[in-house]
Amino acid sequence: MDTDYNNATVVGGGVIGISWAALFLAHGLHVTITDPEPGIEPLVRAGLAEVAPTLSALGLPTSDLTDRTDALRFEPDLALAVADADVVQENGPERADLKQQLWAQIEDAAPRDALFASSSSGIPATTIAAGMRQPERLLIGHPFNPPHLVPLVEIVPGERTSPEVVRQAVDFYQAMGKQPQVLNKEIGGFVANRLQSALFREAVHLVAIGVVTEQELDDIVTSSIGMRWAVAGPFQTFHLGGGPGGLPDFLVHLGKQLEASWSGLGSPTFDDATVALLSEQAANFGGTVEELAAERDAKEIALMRALDELPNHVQKESIR
Amino acid sequence: MDTDYNNATVVGGGVIGISWAALFLAHGLHVTITDPEPGIEPLVRAGLAEVAPTLSALGLPTSDLTDRTDALRFEPDLALAVADADVVQENGPERADLKQQLWAQIEDAAPRDALFASSSSGIPATTIAAGMRQPERLLIGHPFNPPHLVPLVEIVPGERTSPEVVRQAVDFYQAMGKQPQVLNKEIGGFVANRLQSALFREAVHLVAIGVVTEQELDDIVTSSIGMRWAVAGPFQTFHLGGGPGGLPDFLVHLGKQLEASWSGLGSPTFDDATVALLSEQAANFGGTVEELAAERDAKEIALMRALDELPNHVQKESIR
Repeated sequence: MDTDYNNATVVGGGVIGISWAALFLAHGLHVTITDPEPGIEPLVRAGLAEVAPTLSALGLPTSDLTDRTDALRFEPDLALAVADADVVQENGPERADLKQQLWAQIEDAAPRDALFASSSSGIPATTIAAGMRQPERLLIGHPFNPPHLVPLVEIVPGERTSPEVVRQAVDFYQAMGKQPQVLNKEIGGFVANRLQSALFREAVHLVAIGVVTEQELDDIVTSSIGMRWAVAGPFQTFHLGGGPGGLPDFLVHLGKQLEASWSGLGSPTFDDATVALLSEQAANFGGTVEELAAERDAKEIALMRALDELPNHVQKESIR
Repeated sequence: MDTDYNNATVVGGGVIGISWAALFLAHGLHVTITDPEPGIEPLVRAGLAEVAPTLSALGLPTSDLTDRTDALRFEPDLALAVADADVVQENGPERADLKQQLWAQIEDAAPRDALFASSSSGIPATTIAAGMRQPERLLIGHPFNPPHLVPLVEIVPGERTSPEVVRQAVDFYQAMGKQPQVLNKEIGGFVANRLQSALFREAVHLVAIGVVTEQELDDIVTSSIGMRWAVAGPFQTFHLGGGPGGLPDFLVHLGKQLEASWSGLGSPTFDDATVALLSEQAANFGGTVEELAAERDAKEIALMRALDELPNHVQKESIR
């Protein structure tokens, strides 16, 4: 580890908390998990064991995930849990009042130079930090599910977050093998989920009106825009689709046409009939959720290897 | 070649026509290119030479693309060009009246059992075939750019297209190493471009209001939803994000929240300020369009190899 972060406290032992804990452990950190739920330890340990093969396939050491080592401890008392933390990653319920309470306590009990990040997928740091004495210390470090595998972490500073804290967070997540991206403005849903939501809206529309089934739409995506956007984002895709003049030419020639097409996009709702149709077709994916997830993660790892998107040290030491 | 297709006529020698011609040649077909433009031959030959390395990297033979063989001929007269065709792939201008004229002529001059496909990206087969004596013969075979590389071909039958012709088209494109997907209903823009358009709309919004730059948004996509959708489409992604209960549970727990988020998505327009901003940022992609396209295609091929999405015979013979 080439950072100053040795002790990470993960607040909340749910799916996201487990995934962060796994990632931190695999990068050599000591991890404290704090969760008021009494029976949390066996659930977390089972979750870590489930995640271990994926991190192992990424070339990371996983003995601290599967064996009982002193790298992992459980501390139900929040104040005690953060007392020695170099970084606190909070994954509490997605409610502003609860997050505000958590961070008021964390701020009181944690070391003065600890890095503070919330995994919140929607509540902005400005709101969460409203009652903090030092709101400049908090930012959003929003992972894309599952955090131990997908490279993106959206770093969303609040109105009062200090630039130095943003810089520290970028360094920290990079040291964890992630690809952090700092947003320049707070916006509900941040970027990746907003984009996903926009596409999914049209996907629901096309299935609801019977143009394609869910499986057919998924096959269309993986064999076209999905594989495109895995290697070049939407702007570069149109930049490269506009001839030698790139995006500016593309916008001149096709911008108005594209804009006109937007008004024809669907506005579906999740009424009973739509939910029933979508739920029914989900039975046809050809495997249990666990089987399909394992298959997807294996493909994801193959893709990451192919595109050299593995964490740097893994590329250098184990794979190449 | 394990099909009945030996002679392909490509109508229109532009970028899409060249790409189809390259793919057909690389799969052993004899290709006739017909285009009224007098100086088309050198342009097409230059285009084929440019595309050859990509097809070669995919493991396909490319001597008919780079050398002067009898596999490729140019015939400006449309009727003569289709006289011996087993398949006609039309890439005329995206105007209904012009396509209707082309197909009236093709229908008169082509053999009775030739397969008829239009590359149209938006005009439905029903419209194009309105004046045909045998509208049951025409369908849309819409590629995703560039056709020689991206697996998807959207097959969109018109209201009167015969099921047998649809089946033939699926077989033909599969023999060309593609992943055809038949749409169950005609809809403007088909599926992939509608989904792309929906996401791009929100992408433009987020850049226009300054949340991220184009490059930052592209980086967010490639490191999250892009790599996800390369291996599992949007429905499977949420199916696997809903716990063991899959998509049905996801819709119960998060459907209404997702629906609510749709109303907060942006409605940008390509006004002068937005076009100027988008065009300006496109200068920061770090390379010429040609360089970036070559880099993207190389990554795409690496990804296709990693995911076993190469044409079947290539997997069997050259790569694995």
